[in-house]
Amino acid sequence: MEIEIATIGGYEEVGRQMTAVRAGNDIVIFDMGLNLSKVLIHDNIQTEGMHSLDLIDMGAIPDDRVMSDLEGDVRAIVPTHGHLDHIGAISKLAHRYDAPIVATPFTLELVKGELEDENKFGSDNELIQMDAGDSMQIGDHGIELEFVNVTHSIIQAINPVLHTPEGAIVYGLDKRMDHSPVIGDPIDMKRFREIGREGDGVLCYIEDCTNANKKGRTPSESVAREHLRDTLYSMEEYDGGIVATTFSSHIARVKSLVEFAREIGRQPILLGRSMETYSGTAKRLDVDFPSDVQMVGYRRSIDQTLERIMNDGKGNFLPVVTGHQGEPRALLTRMARGETPYDLEEGDKVVFSARVIPEPTNEGQRYQAEKLLGMQGARVYSDIHVSGHLCQEGHYTMLDALQPQHVIPAHQDLAGFSGYVDLASNQGYTLGRDLHTTSNGNIIQLV
Amino acid sequence: MEIEIATIGGYEEVGRQMTAVRAGNDIVIFDMGLNLSKVLIHDNIQTEGMHSLDLIDMGAIPDDRVMSDLEGDVRAIVPTHGHLDHIGAISKLAHRYDAPIVATPFTLELVKGELEDENKFGSDNELIQMDAGDSMQIGDHGIELEFVNVTHSIIQAINPVLHTPEGAIVYGLDKRMDHSPVIGDPIDMKRFREIGREGDGVLCYIEDCTNANKKGRTPSESVAREHLRDTLYSMEEYDGGIVATTFSSHIARVKSLVEFAREIGRQPILLGRSMETYSGTAKRLDVDFPSDVQMVGYRRSIDQTLERIMNDGKGNFLPVVTGHQGEPRALLTRMARGETPYDLEEGDKVVFSARVIPEPTNEGQRYQAEKLLGMQGARVYSDIHVSGHLCQEGHYTMLDALQPQHVIPAHQDLAGFSGYVDLASNQGYTLGRDLHTTSNGNIIQLV
Amino acid sequence: MEIEIATIGGYEEVGRQMTAVRAGNDIVIFDMGLNLSKVLIHDNIQTEGMHSLDLIDMGAIPDDRVMSDLEGDVRAIVPTHGHLDHIGAISKLAHRYDAPIVATPFTLELVKGELEDENKFGSDNELIQMDAGDSMQIGDHGIELEFVNVTHSIIQAINPVLHTPEGAIVYGLDKRMDHSPVIGDPIDMKRFREIGREGDGVLCYIEDCTNANKKGRTPSESVAREHLRDTLYSMEEYDGGIVATTFSSHIARVKSLVEFAREIGRQPILLGRSMETYSGTAKRLDVDFPSDVQMVGYRRSIDQTLERIMNDGKGNFLPVVTGHQGEPRALLTRMARGETPYDLEEGDKVVFSARVIPEPTNEGQRYQAEKLLGMQGARVYSDIHVSGHLCQEGHYTMLDALQPQHVIPAHQDLAGFSGYVDLASNQGYTLGRDLHTTSNGNIIQLV
Amino acid sequence: MEIEIATIGGYEEVGRQMTAVRAGNDIVIFDMGLNLSKVLIHDNIQTEGMHSLDLIDMGAIPDDRVMSDLEGDVRAIVPTHGHLDHIGAISKLAHRYDAPIVATPFTLELVKGELEDENKFGSDNELIQMDAGDSMQIGDHGIELEFVNVTHSIIQAINPVLHTPEGAIVYGLDKRMDHSPVIGDPIDMKRFREIGREGDGVLCYIEDCTNANKKGRTPSESVAREHLRDTLYSMEEYDGGIVATTFSSHIARVKSLVEFAREIGRQPILLGRSMETYSGTAKRLDVDFPSDVQMVGYRRSIDQTLERIMNDGKGNFLPVVTGHQGEPRALLTRMARGETPYDLEEGDKVVFSARVIPEPTNEGQRYQAEKLLGMQGARVYSDIHVSGHLCQEGHYTMLDALQPQHVIPAHQDLAGFSGYVDLASNQGYTLGRDLHTTSNGNIIQLV
Repeated sequence: MEIEIATIGGYEEVGRQMTAVRAGNDIVIFDMGLNLSKVLIHDNIQTEGMHSLDLIDMGAIPDDRVMSDLEGDVRAIVPTHGHLDHIGAISKLAHRYDAPIVATPFTLELVKGELEDENKFGSDNELIQMDAGDSMQIGDHGIELEFVNVTHSIIQAINPVLHTPEGAIVYGLDKRMDHSPVIGDPIDMKRFREIGREGDGVLCYIEDCTNANKKGRTPSESVAREHLRDTLYSMEEYDGGIVATTFSSHIARVKSLVEFAREIGRQPILLGRSMETYSGTAKRLDVDFPSDVQMVGYRRSIDQTLERIMNDGKGNFLPVVTGHQGEPRALLTRMARGETPYDLEEGDKVVFSARVIPEPTNEGQRYQAEKLLGMQGARVYSDIHVSGHLCQEGHYTMLDALQPQHVIPAHQDLAGFSGYVDLASNQGYTLGRDLHTTSNGNIIQLV
Repeated sequence: MEIEIATIGGYEEVGRQMTAVRAGNDIVIFDMGLNLSKVLIHDNIQTEGMHSLDLIDMGAIPDDRVMSDLEGDVRAIVPTHGHLDHIGAISKLAHRYDAPIVATPFTLELVKGELEDENKFGSDNELIQMDAGDSMQIGDHGIELEFVNVTHSIIQAINPVLHTPEGAIVYGLDKRMDHSPVIGDPIDMKRFREIGREGDGVLCYIEDCTNANKKGRTPSESVAREHLRDTLYSMEEYDGGIVATTFSSHIARVKSLVEFAREIGRQPILLGRSMETYSGTAKRLDVDFPSDVQMVGYRRSIDQTLERIMNDGKGNFLPVVTGHQGEPRALLTRMARGETPYDLEEGDKVVFSARVIPEPTNEGQRYQAEKLLGMQGARVYSDIHVSGHLCQEGHYTMLDALQPQHVIPAHQDLAGFSGYVDLASNQGYTLGRDLHTTSNGNIIQLV
Repeated sequence: MEIEIATIGGYEEVGRQMTAVRAGNDIVIFDMGLNLSKVLIHDNIQTEGMHSLDLIDMGAIPDDRVMSDLEGDVRAIVPTHGHLDHIGAISKLAHRYDAPIVATPFTLELVKGELEDENKFGSDNELIQMDAGDSMQIGDHGIELEFVNVTHSIIQAINPVLHTPEGAIVYGLDKRMDHSPVIGDPIDMKRFREIGREGDGVLCYIEDCTNANKKGRTPSESVAREHLRDTLYSMEEYDGGIVATTFSSHIARVKSLVEFAREIGRQPILLGRSMETYSGTAKRLDVDFPSDVQMVGYRRSIDQTLERIMNDGKGNFLPVVTGHQGEPRALLTRMARGETPYDLEEGDKVVFSARVIPEPTNEGQRYQAEKLLGMQGARVYSDIHVSGHLCQEGHYTMLDALQPQHVIPAHQDLAGFSGYVDLASNQGYTLGRDLHTTSNGNIIQLV
Repeated sequence: MEIEIATIGGYEEVGRQMTAVRAGNDIVIFDMGLNLSKVLIHDNIQTEGMHSLDLIDMGAIPDDRVMSDLEGDVRAIVPTHGHLDHIGAISKLAHRYDAPIVATPFTLELVKGELEDENKFGSDNELIQMDAGDSMQIGDHGIELEFVNVTHSIIQAINPVLHTPEGAIVYGLDKRMDHSPVIGDPIDMKRFREIGREGDGVLCYIEDCTNANKKGRTPSESVAREHLRDTLYSMEEYDGGIVATTFSSHIARVKSLVEFAREIGRQPILLGRSMETYSGTAKRLDVDFPSDVQMVGYRRSIDQTLERIMNDGKGNFLPVVTGHQGEPRALLTRMARGETPYDLEEGDKVVFSARVIPEPTNEGQRYQAEKLLGMQGARVYSDIHVSGHLCQEGHYTMLDALQPQHVIPAHQDLAGFSGYVDLASNQGYTLGRDLHTTSNGNIIQLV
């Protein structure tokens, strides 16, 4: 059976991930993501009403025109988890394919939201839930799609595995190797090791290289949680304002914030539109999340809530807000500019449970936000965070577990792949033979 | 009563700390430390046989000649904890003063060791144990010395407080604010807050500025412990060699290494001369340390032990060794060069539970050690560590707790003080008036 | 005679410089500057109509209320050169003092422009021209003000020296030690050495510490000129668009750009409001500047000029434009966004004869500008520049030449002073005795 | 005619360059270099007596065993210039091939020296001089080897071009684009442009990617020369010791040092073994080098010379010495340790006309050397240097001139190639099709 892999998007950048695997006549697409920075560099663009081709020209969504070179039928579109760089182009591209969208429940809910917000295109792809550990048949030639449970900075992430007569194709985006995540099960390394050894083994492994130039091992979410616990407990005696911010989609982190807020005697409130979107989704589904926490998404309601907090006494609350990157219009930045009813005063604490995304535009915005917070007297606690992506020792361990015949680094540009290429070369792989650094729009023939 | 503070050493560098406080006719000396880097830049120097004056000229130990300008009698020499930059000059300088050395038990044991290793000078200072929380009278004019429990990267650290009729002098070196240290009690913030409010309050606070240019808050040892736990558990399935290294004096970290080694089914063995010195001391005293762990200090015995480990199977052991900075003659570097019976093989793990001290000489040595380890196939896990020193939010909290009339930044050079000066200025202190940046060899008159 | 120095502004930052020297009953003020970044962090502020006190509260201009503690009469206000951080507060503060403004011709012209743009305050201070090398009497007690020629990134910079019966006060802001500047005379080191040795020598030296943490020596403008020449000549064969940008106030650099543009066969045109202000001023005065170069300042005229350039052929022109820091509204950024008639095409060259001011806000803006230029196909040449400020070896040489009794580091914050303090300490000065690190609003009594 | 390129060494590192081109039955080898850092990480190794295979195993010299997969006869071995990473393996590998070594006169002299120092192998390859601009026939099938003049940090560098019936193969290592080098002719861009357009144009271009991640354009040697002139002239008044160091092989820089030393009234003397080797070679050949300068290579003679300098007065001399990287045993480091008769005193100047090679081992050694110099009172001037390698705008211009069908990045590892791959991709090349990132030991079939 012929096996081809089309590396459509996310092979020259972090963002707009999309990969298609053809096994015989059956095709499965993994991810359809958005590169938000390509949108934001332009002033005042609303993507909801834009045409795919314009977004492709901007480099914002994957250029899926290479799909016409793949001979076969698309059987499934599989978003691996709910981050925008993996699902953000579904509303622009999925309608072109007569195939269901298959994802875990949390991811699928977020995909639904994306489809509802879309103004330009209508989509009638079927939506199919599948849990980690489960499998489904793809086409009629003995191909099976399996979801292996992985751990990432969003819940219900999986690595899809396509079992073909030629061996398994493991799509490894995005994950870290977490043996004690705060929500959900540990990464299923046992299953990966089995897949590496059963049948014909692994034909090809596509790896998340976000951190491929970072040495060592990504710590567990339990380390960030302990760091956060330690930080918030250190403020237990303080009776003024404490505000926290983190990635809205990082449900485990939001959960920790909510729990520790209560443990130090404060009522947590989630504020901001994306806070409400992600946490609201977690609340509706049956995940291990404190479902009784208050969430407020609209600006007018947020300002009313902040007014109430001021009236009841800041010391009784811990608002968890949007704005961890210093985004100019996010709630935290508005608070820093004194544009909300919440008065930041000398000694108040602001906890960034996030790291600055290392890009000068972000760094400039975040710097300004911290400056403005400082001008109000706020004390800033940053970097209470761990990455959601494997570092080099994780990559080493995955290679050891899967023993793949071919590897394809993804989710970076070439400079970003280089650490992975060094590592794989040391493990015996050879560039151009079984180690494929590629670019967007290529097709790699494996069999 | 006249109060003067002589800033003798450690006010232009990190290292060779020494400060004297005169209250009326009574003088107390805090710390007598060594700046090891000033020794190591020269080839082949043995400090044990050297004269104080030569070491002073090299900048290695404090220039205590300014003591002759302080009119009064030295009543006590008080090393705050057992690190060399606080006790390493006692064997060279203490004999000049007719005064007891007062310290916590663990610190005092290490001081004894220093005095025994000394070849040039004999010392007959009395050695007095005092625990955190206890006090003693100094002289006959109502002055009292109290030890407040603090938390640092070595056990039994204290901050000495000299209660005088003019208010308290708090000597704040070295600490972080740890509410869940792995060994011993949390930092006694309650006592600091009392001292700040009782009687005449705090006349002067001398602050540990090691990290004064670092934003945020130093995490607890519990965060490093969770990170270490997570790291070692991630290796649980590996059946080859695992080697760890950390600061020998960091008893809490060594304890965590020992415990997690056992939890993942390996026998921990402490190897290296300074490993034996510090852990042996901890074992002899009644601290919360696994006293049944094996320790080997001499090179010949170390090599025999490593041979035994190879015979019994590397997979059953976890050697905890010296060499975390890549020191050319330390055990880990010898292992990396293949100069010991321990064979590092492809896939073996080396865990650095330490951070590289950021100085080009160290960085060069550590880089070489990692290169050599890599040439043997070893996988390196670095930076599993937290600092032992307050960052800016700790400094902010201490000022808030103590409300001192005067502050003196210490344990850095002027560039290192600058973050503290900014912070204190924002809190209302004024350079040259109640905020004293000073240099080695000065005397500051407070009353 | 009593000598006091009031360190009013620019001792905790780079920006809003202001220092007053009292000798007996006579006072001279050096510089009255603006810290623009304190204005820009707020949205949409126009300083022209603002009150001084509001600008003082923002930290934008010096807080000159300390002047009431100096007993004497202000005899002169002396801006040392035409940069905004030295003259930008004159329009807000000078009117409070009944004293002339004394400056070199170029500086004085720029001061006039500032006074004319001011909307809130009227000023009737007399304006007195004085050239480098000249002197004037101050008051009736034997005090003299001398201008010593120095070299900086703007023409006609001087260091004022106040000769008092107690020795000279040398105000050393801002300069580098340039023996082959492109316009004007070399720095007058001979005169500095004389001042250091004649009469009572130098009582006090106030030093420009902008680069005090940088090792080595700042290169001459001739090095930047050679670098620029080499860069533009390397483009001689290119027949498409070439655009350059630099500091508008850097007349020597603009001159080099104009000359090399012509040498490679292109017509230089200066575009942008501040380009016209500074170069127009240089043209009106009798300085060594190509007076026949075209300058266009208003946006409508700029766009017409760019249209003409497009019609006549980009290859015949070299526009020198504003926007070297990626300022969002500057001409170069507008060109990068495609908002002007000038079409940047694949292969066109953009030359930044400037360095990014190392602050995250700037870095973010500059990064975006370069990204946008790259999206148009432009090739970017950066960092063709040398600093206008002394590095450590310049500071060393100045101390050696002047042999001052006291030194006061200025034009930085404490972290910025630290390199200078190390250097001066090594030369025998002692913090707190004859080496004065100070802050805004202090008065130092020398005699 | 079949065309293959064997990328033998220097495709995973900077160092041990070696590439072979097969055109039909005729093979030409470009460069045979040494990676010195792979030798130095081991203690006490002397390469002169070592076998090739051991050096190959260490990664120190190219693994030329892939040559047996190339079917044809080696017709020439062509070192492009005299740096060790291009000629340092000739003495170990050339004897295996029955082919002449063809190089420019200066390069050939240095090759001779290498062959003479070799203890293990004897070599009887013919040595053929060829100047830039000249050509020779290779084999009998219409293949021609041409030397195009380029500019680098050593004199007489060329880029060899192999003209084949299928188009030209341009081997682009190592160069910068210098239009005003201090010795020799400017880079022959006119010839490159002709080669790009004549006949079948360029089949393949192999590019020097040392600086491929650096933006902008490498300045000319004339910029470094102006910087050096400015630096030394700034010391004209100083009458104590001045010492300079630079790359011994950098004849143009040594020439500038010699000339400026004389212009400021000092006698230059070249000291150190490699100083004598390279400058002595330059002196013997007819290059534009001050042939009357004194050179001393042996340690005993050096110390005698330094003694004479001390007797005659340091102020009359400018020793140009080895040790620009702080190498522990180099002359400058010995001077810094006080191990030579030359007394460094307070205020003496040390000029590093070199940049620290950015690798932690070097950085550590250089830091120590500067520390030791500072302990003697010396003032250090660093980084008076420009790179010898193209940055991105040079790469852009080369692509524009040559318009090659295929490009192969070389002289870096994959991370180092990444900037070049981005650039070439933007110019329309595609990874894996006509843009070949490869590794050591591969063969690329072009025709």
